[in-house]
Amino acid sequence: MAEADARGGDAHGIFRLPQYVKQIESGAVNPRPKIEIVRERPGSALVDGDNGLGHLVMTRATHLAIEKARQCGVAWVGTRRSNHAGPAQLYPRMAATQDMIGMYFCVGNANLLPPWGGSEVLLSTNPISISVPGLRHPTITLDMATTNTAFGKIRLKAQRGEPMPEGWMIDREGKPLTDAKRASEGFLLPIGGPKGYGLALMIGLLAGTLNGAAFGRDVVDYTVDSKTPSNTGQTIIAVNIAAFAELEPFKESVDEVWDVMKSSPTLPGVDEVRLPGERSEQIYSERMSRGVPLSDGQRKILDELAGRLGVPPLR
Amino acid sequence: MAEADARGGDAHGIFRLPQYVKQIESGAVNPRPKIEIVRERPGSALVDGDNGLGHLVMTRATHLAIEKARQCGVAWVGTRRSNHAGPAQLYPRMAATQDMIGMYFCVGNANLLPPWGGSEVLLSTNPISISVPGLRHPTITLDMATTNTAFGKIRLKAQRGEPMPEGWMIDREGKPLTDAKRASEGFLLPIGGPKGYGLALMIGLLAGTLNGAAFGRDVVDYTVDSKTPSNTGQTIIAVNIAAFAELEPFKESVDEVWDVMKSSPTLPGVDEVRLPGERSEQIYSERMSRGVPLSDGQRKILDELAGRLGVPPLR
Repeated sequence: MAEADARGGDAHGIFRLPQYVKQIESGAVNPRPKIEIVRERPGSALVDGDNGLGHLVMTRATHLAIEKARQCGVAWVGTRRSNHAGPAQLYPRMAATQDMIGMYFCVGNANLLPPWGGSEVLLSTNPISISVPGLRHPTITLDMATTNTAFGKIRLKAQRGEPMPEGWMIDREGKPLTDAKRASEGFLLPIGGPKGYGLALMIGLLAGTLNGAAFGRDVVDYTVDSKTPSNTGQTIIAVNIAAFAELEPFKESVDEVWDVMKSSPTLPGVDEVRLPGERSEQIYSERMSRGVPLSDGQRKILDELAGRLGVPPLR
Repeated sequence: MAEADARGGDAHGIFRLPQYVKQIESGAVNPRPKIEIVRERPGSALVDGDNGLGHLVMTRATHLAIEKARQCGVAWVGTRRSNHAGPAQLYPRMAATQDMIGMYFCVGNANLLPPWGGSEVLLSTNPISISVPGLRHPTITLDMATTNTAFGKIRLKAQRGEPMPEGWMIDREGKPLTDAKRASEGFLLPIGGPKGYGLALMIGLLAGTLNGAAFGRDVVDYTVDSKTPSNTGQTIIAVNIAAFAELEPFKESVDEVWDVMKSSPTLPGVDEVRLPGERSEQIYSERMSRGVPLSDGQRKILDELAGRLGVPPLR
């Protein structure tokens, strides 16, 4: 959670701690899970999270994938009975520090998206993250939802009383919805229309159905229902770079891609081209030296939580 | 190529044969390639296509991935020195017939997309395809470019003198471009803006850079330059369903996902929710019984080609 905040993923970091605590207290999340491998091949595994915090389950799954990919060249590890695991990028980044390419996708923890043309929310933002290490430049890391926007951004617009741009949401008639205060009456829109729907669906089949985890009507929104185990499914893939290329020349080629994109001409009014993960990397450097800013409201919530649980508050 | 046509991917089928012949005649494509595995681990391989037709190289790579996944649970096979291989969906579909999930991505054969905010075309439509087999229902197969539209659709709009909808292209000022006749002055737009750019870039790193294949400024547009070998890179992943689940119950769950999506309520004016690959499957059934329609113009081109090469024309 702290790393999520350090990387600028504020909505996926310590912000969620009170919710996680609520799930633990209600028995929906098991604080002492016995995380087990239930199926295994040389390059694959299915991990049962015993309903533990997603961070624990996914850390275990990622270590396993990295270990297996050292021998096999690639490994694919799925989880079931896991839970919300913070921002997607954490896990492929772990692979990237081990000279591997990491790829992650999961079934999101709330259905917000109907199938294309539909009006029942059966899909989540099912995110995908891919991380590829360079040498001189930071790891290139994509972390994206399959919807045009995240729900957090809509809440922010509503708080500020600002309209949403067209393309973020539609209402129950299928018409553009731009009043952020009416967000509960509409649906998120997938990237590229039917394409984003297709991608969210396939991710659901891979990370959910294949792993025996929830997908479709089974998905539990833990921000609304903190009592029912979520049976979250996730997938982490580790690709051993050495199985395809010499490590250092490969990383130099990744740097070259960075340089080519970065030095390419921009459209009028655009300062510079950015690489996926570049901004998160800048925030990470700043926050690792100056600390993570915390609003007074957020601090108060955490201090009260600490008080109630009898653990020392933040200093 | 015939299967591409049978599945409705007309722009990726026999339509491209004259271009392939041109590449073979100019020496850019090797008609008798010695396709070799240059790096190998139990679950991975890098295949050098010896500049053969992409269809041959990718068929070989896919068979290899399927074979490896039987033991390892998953396999990831990359290609380099390959060429255009038709529609993406052909290869993951091969995996799906073997009780596996297939996943494919490649570096497209023409740069049409600048990085987000940029004005130099450094990226292709870099498509992704995923295929998951069901039991009663057809295989669910996603086959999508990372751009909002394909160039073929723009050419069609230009031929018909119709305007393009906003979101397909922007001009060199970054403004919406809707005049299809001016397409050469603009750029395609990625799905979800920076997200589609990020996805196209990561696919380029995985299918291109990791495999020692072309990506970025190295990409050769074979429709313009039919003399330079393209050094195309592709990735096929096979996931052995049995490594994660019991085969038949899994396929039943996939059918259930199909049924849930299909029976869900629609927006006003929408007839039905469709599954990825559903339409292609309908076209396939029709064309496998009634044949593939071929325009007179297309037929003439193929007959002339046959005449020139001394092979029997279509009857």
